[in-house]
Amino acid sequence: MCPERLITIYGPGLLGGSLALAIQQQFPESKLRLWARRAAAEQGIRTRDINAEFFTDARAAADGASLIILCTPVETMADLARQIAAADLPSDCLITDVGSVKGLVVSDLEPIFGSRFIGSHPMAGSEKTGIEVARANLFEKAACLLTPRAGVDSGRLRHFWETLGCHVLEMTPEEHDLKVARISHLPHMMAAITTLAALRSDPSAISCVAGGFRDTTRVASGDPGLWTGIALANRAALTSQLREASTALIELLEILEKPDEGELRRFLAEAKSLRDTVPAARF
Amino acid sequence: MCPERLITIYGPGLLGGSLALAIQQQFPESKLRLWARRAAAEQGIRTRDINAEFFTDARAAADGASLIILCTPVETMADLARQIAAADLPSDCLITDVGSVKGLVVSDLEPIFGSRFIGSHPMAGSEKTGIEVARANLFEKAACLLTPRAGVDSGRLRHFWETLGCHVLEMTPEEHDLKVARISHLPHMMAAITTLAALRSDPSAISCVAGGFRDTTRVASGDPGLWTGIALANRAALTSQLREASTALIELLEILEKPDEGELRRFLAEAKSLRDTVPAARF
Repeated sequence: MCPERLITIYGPGLLGGSLALAIQQQFPESKLRLWARRAAAEQGIRTRDINAEFFTDARAAADGASLIILCTPVETMADLARQIAAADLPSDCLITDVGSVKGLVVSDLEPIFGSRFIGSHPMAGSEKTGIEVARANLFEKAACLLTPRAGVDSGRLRHFWETLGCHVLEMTPEEHDLKVARISHLPHMMAAITTLAALRSDPSAISCVAGGFRDTTRVASGDPGLWTGIALANRAALTSQLREASTALIELLEILEKPDEGELRRFLAEAKSLRDTVPAARF
Repeated sequence: MCPERLITIYGPGLLGGSLALAIQQQFPESKLRLWARRAAAEQGIRTRDINAEFFTDARAAADGASLIILCTPVETMADLARQIAAADLPSDCLITDVGSVKGLVVSDLEPIFGSRFIGSHPMAGSEKTGIEVARANLFEKAACLLTPRAGVDSGRLRHFWETLGCHVLEMTPEEHDLKVARISHLPHMMAAITTLAALRSDPSAISCVAGGFRDTTRVASGDPGLWTGIALANRAALTSQLREASTALIELLEILEKPDEGELRRFLAEAKSLRDTVPAARF
């Protein structure tokens, strides 16, 4: 029998809702529960044809669950975890999360759940939020980063994400936070900085918009509350990345001030050669 | 009779090739000529089924042309213009370009061509280059910025671009360069800076890549030579924009160092509200 007999998802937003849709497709035998803080969230779940029991009581939602997935903002997870830990959890209960930060989340949740908790971070999302934009194929071909503690068997969790279409990588929470600061948190902040520099003092420039600005700043439309939580939870690594960006920006300004055509070409060619290592698009 | 009876395009790359394809569809009565510096370029033109006379002699390509469009890198346009000016140009010959910079181009070309020259800048392109990626619908729904000198009638050129699907805006070359520094040249440089900051000291972080990095840095794959020319030709406005970006970056670093959650949320919310003014995608 599949160990994922009863799955509880906490937080039915883009990620939680997409997980529910994907689980309905890939684990049709599993029973599904969804928990939200507010009762009003149930309406959105029904609109998306998700066949799940709905809870606003965090402890009741966890009773008997064999797999628990926290999809709430990272700063809310510790509180929620304490309520879940008080539930009647079966001996094979596996608990994970989808938070964008792992150092803080793992150090908050491992003392509460012990070795039944393993952190996950599926590298999938959108600048849009909410169950309205959830989709069953969100995780297909996405990297999913797991941060199991040394000696903890991650096979079952790995199988779960692979069934949803992810390719799984394992690393320590610290390594995760450094790499993700580079590849996700930094670009988000740079998108915000680019938007502010471009439009703060002349919003009318938007009339000339083309694909370059559109793509370069897309993620600046993300939820400010969500990204405030992520940035603060990974503050050290993000700050270090922003300093690297500041160094590169000053380097470019100095090249332009001379101006040195050869250096400018080398600067842009180095960026191009690194950018060209991005694998072809997922879809 | 349509005044666009004989159209010569200089530079059959992404823009020039797309123009040729679009003109074949929208001005089927017009004869088409393509000029390239190297004879080897003719092969690419034939591969794309473009029905045009091919030239490597710039003056001969212009003889008798009623519309001339320069699609070569901005730094090459003045030389080319001097050769074109020596051709036998009909009295109604209209000359334009598609360069990303207008101040320098207009000040180079107006003394050569007088009032028969009007600068254009269709806000369309790709990080990819070459006639292989040209497409007839590249200009559909794109903004096209015209910079006619005061008193010059731009009606015919406006009609040309509108026929290709553009919505046309008019402004001075100076205003163009400031707005385009904001909405195009700055994002290109920021994409390069983000790529370098993210990957220079740890290229392995690319294994965790997701849509955010992919989009935020896409244009950093653009041609370094082309963008070196553009950045140098619009150096003053671009430098000023990069300083605004540096100010915003330092502002964010200071917020993170305190850290001040409220200020961080306001910073990201201001960026989001500006980014949300981008109109919905073209396609």
